[in-house]
Amino acid sequence: MTYCVGMVLDKGLVLMSDTRTNSGVDNISVFRKMFTWAKPGERIISMMTAGNLATTQAVISKLEERTKAPGDRTHSLMGLDTMFQVAAETGKLLRETVKETQESNGARGRGRFTASIILAGQIRGMEPRLFMIYPEGNFIEASFDTPFFQIGETKYGRPIIIRGYDRQMSFEDAVKLLMVSFDSTLKANLSVGLPLDLLVIARDGFERTHEKRIEHSDAYFDAISSSWSDALRNAFHSLPDYSFYQPDEAG
Amino acid sequence: MTYCVGMVLDKGLVLMSDTRTNSGVDNISVFRKMFTWAKPGERIISMMTAGNLATTQAVISKLEERTKAPGDRTHSLMGLDTMFQVAAETGKLLRETVKETQESNGARGRGRFTASIILAGQIRGMEPRLFMIYPEGNFIEASFDTPFFQIGETKYGRPIIIRGYDRQMSFEDAVKLLMVSFDSTLKANLSVGLPLDLLVIARDGFERTHEKRIEHSDAYFDAISSSWSDALRNAFHSLPDYSFYQPDEAG
Repeated sequence: MTYCVGMVLDKGLVLMSDTRTNSGVDNISVFRKMFTWAKPGERIISMMTAGNLATTQAVISKLEERTKAPGDRTHSLMGLDTMFQVAAETGKLLRETVKETQESNGARGRGRFTASIILAGQIRGMEPRLFMIYPEGNFIEASFDTPFFQIGETKYGRPIIIRGYDRQMSFEDAVKLLMVSFDSTLKANLSVGLPLDLLVIARDGFERTHEKRIEHSDAYFDAISSSWSDALRNAFHSLPDYSFYQPDEAG
Repeated sequence: MTYCVGMVLDKGLVLMSDTRTNSGVDNISVFRKMFTWAKPGERIISMMTAGNLATTQAVISKLEERTKAPGDRTHSLMGLDTMFQVAAETGKLLRETVKETQESNGARGRGRFTASIILAGQIRGMEPRLFMIYPEGNFIEASFDTPFFQIGETKYGRPIIIRGYDRQMSFEDAVKLLMVSFDSTLKANLSVGLPLDLLVIARDGFERTHEKRIEHSDAYFDAISSSWSDALRNAFHSLPDYSFYQPDEAG
């Protein structure tokens, strides 16, 4: 499985992904799921992938034109005019890749080999944008009402994001929020695992503002994980107590 | 969908279930999913159901022998010697009911009409017991290592239970914990909804120690829901801050 989150803030974009892939619980590997391309000063584009690993790697390879000799490659993402065009092109490649593998496997391929992609980035002259691309090739864009997207094992870490997200928050607070969300997911589900990849893209920076791989021994992540247990316990005990006898007066 | 949790504590058993059923998002109804039978002083048995509503209602009806005229009914749960036998009998009825509906629907029935049941209770002379019964009719029992079971939409509310559960906690704290877990689930997923059913079974009581339906206007649940937002925010802000520049020293 996988867990990836992309967020739009007033200040820019924040992305985090895990790196665990599994084919059964006894076949676990580390694979990067976050891919970033930048032309500093002009554009930065990042993608996070969930789903069938062969599918997502094929899409990324096609975007990078790895079918061509190195000298002939003109990275297609770098030439497109808008983030919308990038989403459409990525969606098209994703749909084609999924369909191809499904069809070449006949009846056994039906409904399999699917993947989803979170796309984030900014091109000069336009706003930072965040998209969710479906295996069918269509996509939606984050909005004021839904300012973040999750893919993969999304449920464990969703309540804290719903409650903690604030469009005006600092990048540092957003990173903290994502770490809590990932920590809750890691604690509940084996199929999501460290290390994590973190990318912060400041509005109008057109570069990697901050990028980090959070490894197993990461001091900050460990601190968050242990402090969050204590903080949650304190939060829990600060709530009004339940009473069997006058429950309606407890509020 | 559904959300039900059953917990074993040193002091006894605590159960909570929602009441929302849906067939698509535009066909939502309220149905009880918690069923309790007691012979005060001798035994108390409670079940919570998730999955196909026709299946779970059929199982409950069969357990209550509603196929017979009222005078001929000898509630089968009341005559069994152990909770293990109750689990086995319930599992058998569940498997038969699922299989029957699947087979009578041919190929279209495959994999459908399934349901799961959490079974909790105590019979005089034995310990309080908690079981999870699968659609296949087999079942597992809660243990020291896994002292609670969830069915239905389990993921949103799991992290707080993992962190908040303590075998020695009071019933009041357990109810509070379940309310937080249900509130997180309700906030994140439309398919789980109020009212909730709550049942507390004190060890060696052989009766309903505390039973309550938590309705939309419940003052305590509303207080928990709003205090939890504040408490979480405070907990979040109490965590160490992330820094772009010295992340490894932040811990």
